[in-house]
Amino acid sequence: MIPRSARQLSENHAGKPLEYLSFATKRHAMPDVQTPSPAPDLLIHARWIALAHCETLLEHHAIAISNGRIVDILPSHVARERYDAKETVTLAEHLLIPGLINLHTHAAMSLMRGMADDIPLMRWLRDYIWPVERALISPEFIRDGTRLACAEMLLGGVTCFNDMYFFPHDAAESAVELGMRAVLGVTVLEFPSGYASDAADYLDKGLAALDAWRGHPLVKFCLAPHAPYSVSDASFEKIQTLAAQLEIPVHLHIHETADEIRQHLEEHGCRPLHRLDRLGLLGPQLIGVHAVHLLDDEIATLARNSCNVAHCPTSNLKLGSGIAPVAEMLVQEINVGLGTDGATSNNRLDLFAEMRLASLLVKGKSGDASLVPAWKSLQMATLAGARALGLEREIGSIEIGKYADLTAVRFDTLELSPCFDPISHLVHCAGRENVSHVWVQGRCCVFDKTLLHHENANLKNNARLWHNRIVSYLKLDSV
Amino acid sequence: MIPRSARQLSENHAGKPLEYLSFATKRHAMPDVQTPSPAPDLLIHARWIALAHCETLLEHHAIAISNGRIVDILPSHVARERYDAKETVTLAEHLLIPGLINLHTHAAMSLMRGMADDIPLMRWLRDYIWPVERALISPEFIRDGTRLACAEMLLGGVTCFNDMYFFPHDAAESAVELGMRAVLGVTVLEFPSGYASDAADYLDKGLAALDAWRGHPLVKFCLAPHAPYSVSDASFEKIQTLAAQLEIPVHLHIHETADEIRQHLEEHGCRPLHRLDRLGLLGPQLIGVHAVHLLDDEIATLARNSCNVAHCPTSNLKLGSGIAPVAEMLVQEINVGLGTDGATSNNRLDLFAEMRLASLLVKGKSGDASLVPAWKSLQMATLAGARALGLEREIGSIEIGKYADLTAVRFDTLELSPCFDPISHLVHCAGRENVSHVWVQGRCCVFDKTLLHHENANLKNNARLWHNRIVSYLKLDSV
Repeated sequence: MIPRSARQLSENHAGKPLEYLSFATKRHAMPDVQTPSPAPDLLIHARWIALAHCETLLEHHAIAISNGRIVDILPSHVARERYDAKETVTLAEHLLIPGLINLHTHAAMSLMRGMADDIPLMRWLRDYIWPVERALISPEFIRDGTRLACAEMLLGGVTCFNDMYFFPHDAAESAVELGMRAVLGVTVLEFPSGYASDAADYLDKGLAALDAWRGHPLVKFCLAPHAPYSVSDASFEKIQTLAAQLEIPVHLHIHETADEIRQHLEEHGCRPLHRLDRLGLLGPQLIGVHAVHLLDDEIATLARNSCNVAHCPTSNLKLGSGIAPVAEMLVQEINVGLGTDGATSNNRLDLFAEMRLASLLVKGKSGDASLVPAWKSLQMATLAGARALGLEREIGSIEIGKYADLTAVRFDTLELSPCFDPISHLVHCAGRENVSHVWVQGRCCVFDKTLLHHENANLKNNARLWHNRIVSYLKLDSV
Repeated sequence: MIPRSARQLSENHAGKPLEYLSFATKRHAMPDVQTPSPAPDLLIHARWIALAHCETLLEHHAIAISNGRIVDILPSHVARERYDAKETVTLAEHLLIPGLINLHTHAAMSLMRGMADDIPLMRWLRDYIWPVERALISPEFIRDGTRLACAEMLLGGVTCFNDMYFFPHDAAESAVELGMRAVLGVTVLEFPSGYASDAADYLDKGLAALDAWRGHPLVKFCLAPHAPYSVSDASFEKIQTLAAQLEIPVHLHIHETADEIRQHLEEHGCRPLHRLDRLGLLGPQLIGVHAVHLLDDEIATLARNSCNVAHCPTSNLKLGSGIAPVAEMLVQEINVGLGTDGATSNNRLDLFAEMRLASLLVKGKSGDASLVPAWKSLQMATLAGARALGLEREIGSIEIGKYADLTAVRFDTLELSPCFDPISHLVHCAGRENVSHVWVQGRCCVFDKTLLHHENANLKNNARLWHNRIVSYLKLDSV
């Protein structure tokens, strides 16, 4: 039986390190971990620690970290006797959770945040997003935009993001500069942009970036064909072969709007998922983004093929796409992670908001207030994202052997008083504004609400410069 | 033609005070205002000011305030020449909006925040809410709970709340102590509580409180029959008579869940709205809370009778009630304000979250991303609330003659960069964490994110004490 409360754990196991809590995840065994050294690099004591993978809340425990990995999880009083760490951080009124994983975004679009709100989807794309992307996208745009997005995400407790955009090499540079973990998309489209000319060119450039970053601990790649309506059969076939060879995920928009399905029916004689199935795209490597409009048998197909879904609740509402059938997907044990989408369709890169909204929408749509309870929301925002990315051996939960990607949420504010259940509080009450500390691979990126590896003023100034270029280009009546 | 942008205004009218912007609201003329004195009590310069009533954004303007009321709105450079105010506040990177109005809450339930999440409605009420209310509700509970709620709301930019709970006299004391405006409910139920024994007793006690607070500038009262399923015909008739005599609103839960409608059909042979109509309750004095389950002809009935609706989007999702037909109500010009509901069913008393969610849900449900644009959301959270409460001559918009209930939102943070449209940013991007200053009736209650009229530590300590009593009473396995 899995111990459910901190009290049970402390009573039963006080004084013993909690190695038995390191459950192996579904697909892989855990990496081997050396016996912890008596002098770990970092010891974090926390009032509460959320072991999301086994729905266990530890109280007054500590995490020992060496070489970026978690090497021990044990009661604080035992840790104080056992370890003489190089650095110790005490989080007296905090909940420590796995770093949040943003399973779908277009990070550099942060520079267009709020450029075109409350506008129907096709006008939004045609009159605003595409023109700006055609005219202004450049390595500099990507660097400045990704920096801004990473800063916002880190401050909000997100430690890893799955990106689909242009110039992935530059996006990776920006993420690493701020100390953030990133999975970059080898984006593929049939039409030209400021980045590439055709599908082959997109693939060449993306794969070159992938090669350049091979082996980097913070940077991984996905193949990222944009969507069934913007990628040809031939390209999909190439992508499927590459995904199998490289053993990396395929990150793809699917069934976002009713319109795109109608159009696909006209052009291809079938719904998009049917075509993807025929092309062999459906499998555990697939991260299907949005998945709003699904027939019952399509949900079954996704489940049977062990596909992953990146649920983006805010974006789906804001663009008028609809509400994804998340309850139905979860019943069929589809692995559903959470994404913010880009800052033009959200406009917060805020996984706290997505955790809460994911839980609320399922309850409101189904009429059952007990669905997607708080632990489930937290799992969607952490371990489910890691699984979808094929990184569940490395990140997504607080387990011995995994990287120390950690987020601390400070609970002693009055809007979080009183606190009956920290996990429920985390999802239904806390916000990203309550994040105090963030570590990525054991390295502190946010300390006491302050971003450590970049100068805020530059981020804002650069955003202002790009704002002015966009306003001038689109002739907007902006402030 | 109403000027739509700050630029237009500044170009056309620079140097002239903007009295012409003081549009009278629908039902009443504006109160007479004396010619502004050359020494107002307070002059607030702001980068942007949102005149929500006429969808106009002013840039680099100032508001002059005397005796708690707005006496002038004019370009900053003119204000500097014209006025020598006793106090001047400059908000260089802020948007100034009307103080937000929370049109439905049970403030003191903040002490039960998060006590019972992810639980179906009837179990939630029967096993958690009602037992605690029966056992622990007292004047002290109400005072401590209302203080905590007011502190949270003020810090989040809410300047006025419409309350339905017990011991309204004590709730009023707490609100006034923190400097907040409150509309207290003369709650009526047929069954006993720790506060009153039967409907007559509830009415007596509530009306005594109303009499005691008559004439207080910050405190008003509503009649608050709990719901059609908990109030008898005889009580409704008394309430209707009183509402007409006292000229105050009637604050009432309606059609929150499908179950309550089914049950009402069984017991009364009709749906609740039909019975309310027969009893004469439908009219411009009615604030119908939730209104989730409405037939088309019921929406028409609400519209024809000029009823108001308090939309509580988070609460309706969290308790599994559903999504209210807000788009349909707005088409029929029903006055729809926003409420958080109590902290047990939300759990944030956060009108920024409700503004955003109200806009998102309408877009997602209708498939039309242009519905409930940002200005409309802001109006729902301000002027619509004031109208529902019969206070539209006094609050709800930034107009000469109205009380200076104002909220400043600081826009120079990196998660709000860049900024193309401050109003869209306010709704889709900003959060209550960006609120910097709050004034109620010209008196500063929050300055630079700090609550001025109460000591935070006490609020948190008291919340902890009540937490312990609740845990002990319910024998909860809480932290």
